[in-house]
Amino acid sequence: MTGLLESLKEVLIVLVEPEDPLNIGSIARAMKNLGYRKLVLVNPAIGWRKKAEITARKAADILDDAVECDSLTEAVEGSTLVVGTTAKTGGPRAVVRKVVDADLFFSGFKWSPAGIAIVFGRESIGLKVDELAMCDVLIRISTDIQYPTMNLAVAAAIVMYELRRSLKYKTKTAKPPHPKLRRELINCIEELTKRAGYPEFKRKSAALLLRRVILGCAPHMLTHEECERIVGLLRKATRRIGGSYASQAR
Amino acid sequence: MTGLLESLKEVLIVLVEPEDPLNIGSIARAMKNLGYRKLVLVNPAIGWRKKAEITARKAADILDDAVECDSLTEAVEGSTLVVGTTAKTGGPRAVVRKVVDADLFFSGFKWSPAGIAIVFGRESIGLKVDELAMCDVLIRISTDIQYPTMNLAVAAAIVMYELRRSLKYKTKTAKPPHPKLRRELINCIEELTKRAGYPEFKRKSAALLLRRVILGCAPHMLTHEECERIVGLLRKATRRIGGSYASQAR
Repeated sequence: MTGLLESLKEVLIVLVEPEDPLNIGSIARAMKNLGYRKLVLVNPAIGWRKKAEITARKAADILDDAVECDSLTEAVEGSTLVVGTTAKTGGPRAVVRKVVDADLFFSGFKWSPAGIAIVFGRESIGLKVDELAMCDVLIRISTDIQYPTMNLAVAAAIVMYELRRSLKYKTKTAKPPHPKLRRELINCIEELTKRAGYPEFKRKSAALLLRRVILGCAPHMLTHEECERIVGLLRKATRRIGGSYASQAR
Repeated sequence: MTGLLESLKEVLIVLVEPEDPLNIGSIARAMKNLGYRKLVLVNPAIGWRKKAEITARKAADILDDAVECDSLTEAVEGSTLVVGTTAKTGGPRAVVRKVVDADLFFSGFKWSPAGIAIVFGRESIGLKVDELAMCDVLIRISTDIQYPTMNLAVAAAIVMYELRRSLKYKTKTAKPPHPKLRRELINCIEELTKRAGYPEFKRKSAALLLRRVILGCAPHMLTHEECERIVGLLRKATRRIGGSYASQAR
């Protein structure tokens, strides 16, 4: 168990354009409370640090080590899995907003958490559609329908707590696909949907759906080797379709 | 499930002498997010309301309905179970600080949560020893040893989340001992320890221990009827010991 809890130190906690620096500080404190270390800030407000220190208390070291990025793409580069968070759940046909409860997801999560990124959106509007589409899986906290929107720092603490709790009874974890292989899988899927001749508007959502099913399919988490086999299959199928994909567009 | 989640509305969230009204507001918001309604404040700072509204956002109704009390005894009067929270765990021989992890406790919790009180202490020092001794069970959030003290509002949100989560897969709950029977059990135990001739300093901790074992013994939660039988037994044993208990003091 200790070893697994240690792996929380290698999880990225990514805040996209946080509006209130007090929340950055609160999250830093909760990170240190719960054994996390790596904070990544995408475009935080200039001068966030001073206010964040008020709520960070004894977690100023987390703020010291925080990495600032210009985009979410840059922030999650090299992650084994990108886990987005949202308060809004889509309907049964939603793709971009296909959401799973945090406790269900993490209890089925079989990889070491080292290397994953958990992404939290703005206090006001959360993650934008193009940011949601960058996530391999979307999770939510089960809330009351009357008032589902939690404070950012509280939501982040609950999600971090939930991942930590899920490790308590696990003794070993599987090897996740290497970040490069994850990238390759995503490329393969996109190539396949192009070659299959889907029109642009359908293509993106079909590709995202397939990617979410393959990468975020707890409790049947793919190992690195299994992912390699699926990439192999997709590549072969894509090659079979052959050259010009535009011709088959419906 | 819906019925059980509804019962969260009847859980008391008790804050003992909260020092920062912003935390009162944050907790009110998290309560509304997670389906709780009843906030009880023991000696809050005068004029807490105005600041609390800032963080409560759309949960001002929780603040409107908050009950103010002068003491913890008054606050938990009539509860079926008093659940205290603490960041400090005692050693293996601790009685007052005998603590169980929140997730373990709630996953074994078999009663309807309606009527229980969850008690949170001050930001600076938590609950005092005499307040801890009023609790039938003490729970904690598993944290990193480097920095175990969480922000009050974050800790409260995690505990409320944990109780809510634990209800997700339960279909029915047992009937807890009536608050009057709980009071009777506590009296019986105290009477027994007196009659058994324990010296004062031993008596209190022995009584608390027995009370915690009997009332807080998830996953073997006593039903009302079982509690009646234990009270009957203790009463009979106490009667057998007979009149003057001071004579047997060691």
